[in-house]
Amino acid sequence: MIIGGGFGGLTAARRFKSAPVDVTLVDRTNHHLFQPLLYQVATATLSPTDIMVPIRWGLRRQRNAEVILGEATAVDVNRHVVVVDHGRTELPYDAVIIATGARHSYFGRPGWEVLAPGLKSIEDALDVRNRFLLAFEEAERTDDPAERRAYQTFIVIGGGPTGVELAGMLPEVAKPMRRDYRRIDTRDTRVVLLEGGPRILPSFPESLSAHAKRDLEKLGVEVRTNARVTDVEPDGVRVGGERIDARTVFWAAGNAASKLAKTLGVPLDEAGRVIVTPDLSIPGHPDVFVVGDLARVSRDNDTTVPWVAQGAIQEGRVAADNVLARLAGRPTRLFAYFNKGDLATIGRHRAIADFGFVQVTGFLAWTLWLFIHILYLVGFRNRISVLVQWAYAYFTYQRGMRLITNYARQWEGTVAVGGKYLSPDALEAMGKPALAKVAAGSG
Amino acid sequence: MIIGGGFGGLTAARRFKSAPVDVTLVDRTNHHLFQPLLYQVATATLSPTDIMVPIRWGLRRQRNAEVILGEATAVDVNRHVVVVDHGRTELPYDAVIIATGARHSYFGRPGWEVLAPGLKSIEDALDVRNRFLLAFEEAERTDDPAERRAYQTFIVIGGGPTGVELAGMLPEVAKPMRRDYRRIDTRDTRVVLLEGGPRILPSFPESLSAHAKRDLEKLGVEVRTNARVTDVEPDGVRVGGERIDARTVFWAAGNAASKLAKTLGVPLDEAGRVIVTPDLSIPGHPDVFVVGDLARVSRDNDTTVPWVAQGAIQEGRVAADNVLARLAGRPTRLFAYFNKGDLATIGRHRAIADFGFVQVTGFLAWTLWLFIHILYLVGFRNRISVLVQWAYAYFTYQRGMRLITNYARQWEGTVAVGGKYLSPDALEAMGKPALAKVAAGSG
Repeated sequence: MIIGGGFGGLTAARRFKSAPVDVTLVDRTNHHLFQPLLYQVATATLSPTDIMVPIRWGLRRQRNAEVILGEATAVDVNRHVVVVDHGRTELPYDAVIIATGARHSYFGRPGWEVLAPGLKSIEDALDVRNRFLLAFEEAERTDDPAERRAYQTFIVIGGGPTGVELAGMLPEVAKPMRRDYRRIDTRDTRVVLLEGGPRILPSFPESLSAHAKRDLEKLGVEVRTNARVTDVEPDGVRVGGERIDARTVFWAAGNAASKLAKTLGVPLDEAGRVIVTPDLSIPGHPDVFVVGDLARVSRDNDTTVPWVAQGAIQEGRVAADNVLARLAGRPTRLFAYFNKGDLATIGRHRAIADFGFVQVTGFLAWTLWLFIHILYLVGFRNRISVLVQWAYAYFTYQRGMRLITNYARQWEGTVAVGGKYLSPDALEAMGKPALAKVAAGSG
Repeated sequence: MIIGGGFGGLTAARRFKSAPVDVTLVDRTNHHLFQPLLYQVATATLSPTDIMVPIRWGLRRQRNAEVILGEATAVDVNRHVVVVDHGRTELPYDAVIIATGARHSYFGRPGWEVLAPGLKSIEDALDVRNRFLLAFEEAERTDDPAERRAYQTFIVIGGGPTGVELAGMLPEVAKPMRRDYRRIDTRDTRVVLLEGGPRILPSFPESLSAHAKRDLEKLGVEVRTNARVTDVEPDGVRVGGERIDARTVFWAAGNAASKLAKTLGVPLDEAGRVIVTPDLSIPGHPDVFVVGDLARVSRDNDTTVPWVAQGAIQEGRVAADNVLARLAGRPTRLFAYFNKGDLATIGRHRAIADFGFVQVTGFLAWTLWLFIHILYLVGFRNRISVLVQWAYAYFTYQRGMRLITNYARQWEGTVAVGGKYLSPDALEAMGKPALAKVAAGSG
């Protein structure tokens, strides 16, 4: 059993390719997502289909693997079953690899989630894209200069790689849209990046952080460090005593591990991650492995393996090997992380890269970034022709991507009934007055 | 003022290009949709971005045109204003062209809408795509043969062009997916096309209808004529005394004009369309024009202009000319429809075409269809390179399209709050217990 079709889960599944085992992969979505490029979907640069493959398709040639669409809601380590969809199905296992990753964490302020969406899933990215594009529509429509200014202000909370990549893209995507509007100048777009700590990209060396900050500022992004957000409101963000007016806020500040971790009954770290043993299994249950963003894996001294794609991929591989070792009665392998280097892009043509022995910045680093992502994407979608499409989309600022879907989502209170989002009117017509009342905001 | 950015509205807006007028186009979406290919998005063959352009982008070079994102909720023909978003904005006009089209009509059974989505917008197409793909997931997951059969049965209600095109694509798209599944054979997919009248494609000559029926049957589609649907249920459809078990039902049976028509205070036909005068204005208000699916335009004798893209385009052009004629004090032109021919595809490699003087079927007609759509698409998205992408996607059955988004939509009762769909848990956490109760189904 493998739970989760991200980098960790899918790598593990593929590792079993010629092994004499039956693999079942459970995921609550039907697609594997190339998460490092999610911010490009969010900024209307790539299309969702450019960065995903159906998990089934990824495993179509692997006859010993089957895929189940469903949400694993608990793992019963004593009965050796995975509970899917709150008990609708129970799947027994001989060994299980759990790779369900993390979601955002709003520091105990769940109300902020509605105001400041994060960036983990395709749906998140489309939500961010909608809000980004709608802000310009609203700015064009209003006659009030202060309101217009607030609509043209975007705040990104969190100065890690996701926050930096998102903030860097926003002004670059806004600029070429200027011909589309008549009343606003999209070059006036104000982007503010708020980081609570003393510097952005804290996982990188200090000199690279400083370089990234300068690059962002060249693009017109205001970078504020030591800026702890004290409140998020529908029309602004409070940082201590100060208030920044902005109608659009994005969240890239905190992660919390998937809730599935809690059902294992083992110690978790403060972000809810499972503290695994050196062979990636959990204490007391050598048949249960945890990998990827859900796992806290110790490295030398008191550092941990970072929660990035390459970590998940390496862990997935070792966990799969250890499952096979256990079945064969061989001793398991201890996990050792090999850091291939860290990269973060800034805007469309700059990046920073840290390979330990050498640090690269600017256009050269960006070229490296492109090269590495192209390598991965080709492996990922398996055809050179897709790469051509992608390059085309990337270099032409393809306007087709500027699609606002589910516009109705912007209105408070439409209610999902049988897979459709219905307005109060429609609910009333269907003879569901109670729901209609709620949808209309009076319930 | 132009209301609606479909074929009629956008054509009219462009017609004003070098005219000494200010054009404002209002649409509730930000995109113009190439509706004739919507069924290909619904069957996971094309991506939404392949068949749409942002309306702004389409008018970016036309300096006298501005675009407003908003829903026109009424036209006050006496005060000469368009009311947007229930009064949030009022836009005065000297002349207005209304082109807001039609939605589905469920013959006074609004409850059916939830069970059998139609195909008019991008959101509709994604809903159909989700249901289509999810049905296979559910079939793979169940162990009950009858349930599996019901999940592999798709019913299309309505034998017009949309119903025929959708029904013809389903088996063709299902077949190449067979390697993705382990327990089901996607070639066993059963598609039933139900038409209430005596033949499918009633707008075509009888011989072509018969040909289309044979072509559909060759693809494995069961075509039933004189089959009036008496009830749609979550797990089947009733046709008189008979019941067909099916978990997935699509609607292509009836249209009703946009509600905006009712606010004009002029006579409407039985589908709610505005009965326009020969110059496309409405009786008593020569400054109000109606075009496209919203207009009932008389042709010779007692036939009407059909509600297809070419009708809307021709009407949009004439309405724009008549606005200019009125402003210049010249007499208006009477509308005359020129039928360039009717086409409908059947599956991936067949079509029927009627050009009046000649009728074409099979692969030849399909080639014609392809040629004509390519011509339009190129004009529409303006780049040959897009055509290459499209052809690539079409001929390779691109699996990237098989994306199920908003999976949570499948669960009853998630509630939209501030643009996010939230589960009962999340609502409870946010201190909205009343909404949580509704979402959980007990409200």
